Amino acid sequence: MSDPAFWRGRRVLVTGGAGFLGANLCHALAARGAEVTALDGFLFGGGANPANLEEAPGPGRIELVRGDIREIDLRPLCEGRAVIFNLAAQTSHMGGQADPLADIAVNAVAQVRLIQAMREAAPQAVVVHASTRQFYGRVEKLPVDENQPVAPPDANGVSKFAGEQYWMLEHRVHHRPVTALRLTNCYGPRLRIRDARQTFLGIWLRAVLEGRPFEVWGGEQLRDMTYVDDVTEAFLAAAENPACHGRIFNIGGAPPASLRRIAEILVRAAGAGAEFVVKEFPPERASIDIGSYHADDRAFRAASLWAPRIGLEEGIAASLAWFRPRMARYL
Amino acid sequence: MSDPAFWRGRRVLVTGGAGFLGANLCHALAARGAEVTALDGFLFGGGANPANLEEAPGPGRIELVRGDIREIDLRPLCEGRAVIFNLAAQTSHMGGQADPLADIAVNAVAQVRLIQAMREAAPQAVVVHASTRQFYGRVEKLPVDENQPVAPPDANGVSKFAGEQYWMLEHRVHHRPVTALRLTNCYGPRLRIRDARQTFLGIWLRAVLEGRPFEVWGGEQLRDMTYVDDVTEAFLAAAENPACHGRIFNIGGAPPASLRRIAEILVRAAGAGAEFVVKEFPPERASIDIGSYHADDRAFRAASLWAPRIGLEEGIAASLAWFRPRMARYL
Repeated sequence: MSDPAFWRGRRVLVTGGAGFLGANLCHALAARGAEVTALDGFLFGGGANPANLEEAPGPGRIELVRGDIREIDLRPLCEGRAVIFNLAAQTSHMGGQADPLADIAVNAVAQVRLIQAMREAAPQAVVVHASTRQFYGRVEKLPVDENQPVAPPDANGVSKFAGEQYWMLEHRVHHRPVTALRLTNCYGPRLRIRDARQTFLGIWLRAVLEGRPFEVWGGEQLRDMTYVDDVTEAFLAAAENPACHGRIFNIGGAPPASLRRIAEILVRAAGAGAEFVVKEFPPERASIDIGSYHADDRAFRAASLWAPRIGLEEGIAASLAWFRPRMARYL
Repeated sequence: MSDPAFWRGRRVLVTGGAGFLGANLCHALAARGAEVTALDGFLFGGGANPANLEEAPGPGRIELVRGDIREIDLRPLCEGRAVIFNLAAQTSHMGGQADPLADIAVNAVAQVRLIQAMREAAPQAVVVHASTRQFYGRVEKLPVDENQPVAPPDANGVSKFAGEQYWMLEHRVHHRPVTALRLTNCYGPRLRIRDARQTFLGIWLRAVLEGRPFEVWGGEQLRDMTYVDDVTEAFLAAAENPACHGRIFNIGGAPPASLRRIAEILVRAAGAGAEFVVKEFPPERASIDIGSYHADDRAFRAASLWAPRIGLEEGIAASLAWFRPRMARYL
């Protein structure tokens, strides 16, 4: 569990800070009194949205710096930071397949740039790196722990694994306190719902909010969705807790549910008129489909005392309630 | 075993073709009557040497193109090729740690460029990719098969794994016949002996040829050295044999021997006056040291009928005999 007092007055950098997870983290840090800089390149098709940093709670402050980690001088941004939450990434699987050069430039090459800048400007800073279950690929045995072999199913998986490994080398070779959190599907307020680039649930939420039916592809695949407040707590706890440093952890969420079950929960939460149709998984995506996934996150629970607290029913209802009055900013 | 008739008149591209393994492959292809283009960027500190392509046997031809795969237009070079042997790489472990941006640019980003060029210009070509045992890192169980978890011990391991995985995706998603060979330490004629950038044995050979003692760091670490003719045969067999396509294989060599034992064989082969001193493994390299390694290469032997044929005594004697009259070109 995160300790609010830990953050009072701390200078923190959040890369990808205007994105879905990054912005939620900025808000939580500001609420705890941290001095936050959100760096974001507002990549086309990514999760960044200026609306994500509105309604900041205080007493801390959030400063937004627009800049692309592939190009911007990172040293001044790292200078004097106690903690860096590193969420800047190209996260779209189809995007990675369509433009693998841009994908590796953000997810691996720019990570090396950031590592080098931090050696000069923030040699003591703690880093929590947003990693992903993506590069486990299609797994045979569930739940999945951190010893699962790496078998990236797409270009995005290749680049994200490389980026994570550069960070872990920075721990092993240069002794920086680094934690990598391999996230599963996350959802909640500030998710990109314009399209399906941030999990299937984004486009489902949009359809429901607009009163249209949504499509479930396949339906039997299992997912352990993490509500964004639980993700935020995991990042904070990883930074605070030295027992987490130098380690890689899988992060789970609600108990695993099939896509069909998640769709049913969404329809029930949305009320009268909401509906979905089940379709076959599109053949052009089958080659990068990963089937079912849910995490064995006992290692992280033991090291941090973290546990996910928000179930699917509660999280989906909260997401709908959050988006309804803010729809215009998210389309 | 490679079938010489397979190569007669074939148009082949060898990236890294002026390097140690690439040039030996070019010679073998020319001897079998192939039309070979050797592409090489002559990277500073790499294995490329213009002398490597001298004494070409014929009846085939070797054309050398000087060009850096990070920048050159690759499409014309790929056009009309039946087979591409892909050996261009930044292979130095210390080099990767010193300049990880250059390392990933060659070993991963440029691989994506080559993959994209080949989609346009050589959609049917077979690819054999030179991969490495390097990213297994420090292993606990010997011998090492292909299911060994990936744990890159340095930046070079991160980038080489990413590059290999992009090639395997090209097989899985786009059905290109691709084979990746994870090589262990290779040695023989045309090795870079100027310094220790291409295995410890390079600098040992130089010292012995110059009549100086050489240093053995540690000494108990096991290695299964592959003589270059056996490596060449493995590449040819992988290209020829459809049972190898779409697969990753570990490639071994002579039975495992300790560094001290290898040093003794070298001293005996060199004759009167040759000697070595044993030193502690340098502490500044300990963080990226991998300890002992030898490969379980039964999968490749079964798929290709290949087996290494040159033992350490024979290979080291042949290396000394080859370098003696050619020393001036290799310093």
